[in-house]
Amino acid sequence: MNYRLYYWAGIQGRGEFVRLALEEAGTKYMDMARTENGEDEMIQLMQSAEVARPSFAPPFLQAGAALIGQTANILQFLGREHGLAPQGESGRLWTHQLQLTMSDLVDEAHDVHHPISGNLYYEEQKPEALKRAVHFREERLPKYLGYFDRVQDKAGGKWIAGRKLTYADLSLFQIVEGLRFAFPRAMKRLERKFAALAGLHDRVANRPRIAAYLTSNRRLPFTNADLFRHYPELDG
Amino acid sequence: MNYRLYYWAGIQGRGEFVRLALEEAGTKYMDMARTENGEDEMIQLMQSAEVARPSFAPPFLQAGAALIGQTANILQFLGREHGLAPQGESGRLWTHQLQLTMSDLVDEAHDVHHPISGNLYYEEQKPEALKRAVHFREERLPKYLGYFDRVQDKAGGKWIAGRKLTYADLSLFQIVEGLRFAFPRAMKRLERKFAALAGLHDRVANRPRIAAYLTSNRRLPFTNADLFRHYPELDG
Repeated sequence: MNYRLYYWAGIQGRGEFVRLALEEAGTKYMDMARTENGEDEMIQLMQSAEVARPSFAPPFLQAGAALIGQTANILQFLGREHGLAPQGESGRLWTHQLQLTMSDLVDEAHDVHHPISGNLYYEEQKPEALKRAVHFREERLPKYLGYFDRVQDKAGGKWIAGRKLTYADLSLFQIVEGLRFAFPRAMKRLERKFAALAGLHDRVANRPRIAAYLTSNRRLPFTNADLFRHYPELDG
Repeated sequence: MNYRLYYWAGIQGRGEFVRLALEEAGTKYMDMARTENGEDEMIQLMQSAEVARPSFAPPFLQAGAALIGQTANILQFLGREHGLAPQGESGRLWTHQLQLTMSDLVDEAHDVHHPISGNLYYEEQKPEALKRAVHFREERLPKYLGYFDRVQDKAGGKWIAGRKLTYADLSLFQIVEGLRFAFPRAMKRLERKFAALAGLHDRVANRPRIAAYLTSNRRLPFTNADLFRHYPELDG
């Protein structure tokens, strides 16, 4: 199928979860964020009166004639098309449940540096961010990582949602990467406790197509204009 | 199928989106929050080493032998089982995309009164809540409501995701209800602009099974211990 991925230029963001699935699938896609007018076209597709099913926000994927929005929804679609999700309904629902729990964690990780508004700079909400960061590091992050670590242990194999790799493994890899960038001190401490996550992370990183992607110029670096941000003062 | 809904006792919360789907489906279910040991059993199912697929948080639904978590994921399952979602893949993905966008709005509506931590009382984060409320009322809420209003207009009929009622209509009804409770002044102003939403709300409220549910004692009232809260100072 002919894929076009629409997302903000210059960052990994939520688009990265989709990129990892497209890369692991080994399918061709046009990353519109890397084209000259990609962002303009993206905004046009969100606002045009002629688009029947506009997305509220990127990322969204054009797949043939369809536009599919919401990260977890796109992954559900790609999972089925490219064997990155179980075939049976119960396995598919479980994989999606894990993905939606990861979406919640990603939202919370973002709101650590933007607790008041996404329309203000970090510097304009720093006192609030310092407060929120304490709760994130000491309550929420250990709870989420403990959960995924436990689920990975229960799975009893290499992958979190069953016998085969799924998009949930790819997303958990990206989350571990992002959290290590944003909260290196907290993660060092927590990963000692939740060792199953590092194993999963490494297995994903070593998938041939993922390994090739990560060293290509298609993979953007983490920066402080992105979803995961490293402000040492928020890392405790 | 034999359904048990697990959720916190005494509130509508995210469980209410699932209840509305179960009620519209006219299917039998046990609302475990209304049973004596429902909450204990729920916590047990999240923590027990014997549960293969535990949920990170409620609500979750026991459907026969399966446990299904994450509100939007449960709705996706119920939508297919009970004709509350389109049958074709493209319609199902679109319905789910709308639902996930509503989940984002619900998270943001919650974080208005809890911008720092869910583990603190509102009174402990009131200055931050006052700040976040301004951005929510003036930027985020108009953006979300404008989006759903526009999508409903585009749909060109009674329901937001196509020719038939879906779980997305039920959820949008609940969101309008909750927002009217929490932000009556802001909503009065915004609903003048986004008139398609009130129409959809009323059509859902008048579905015979929903109307019967809303006047039954199974429907809990909105309160300030819930997801949607009415603090006049946050309503501008």
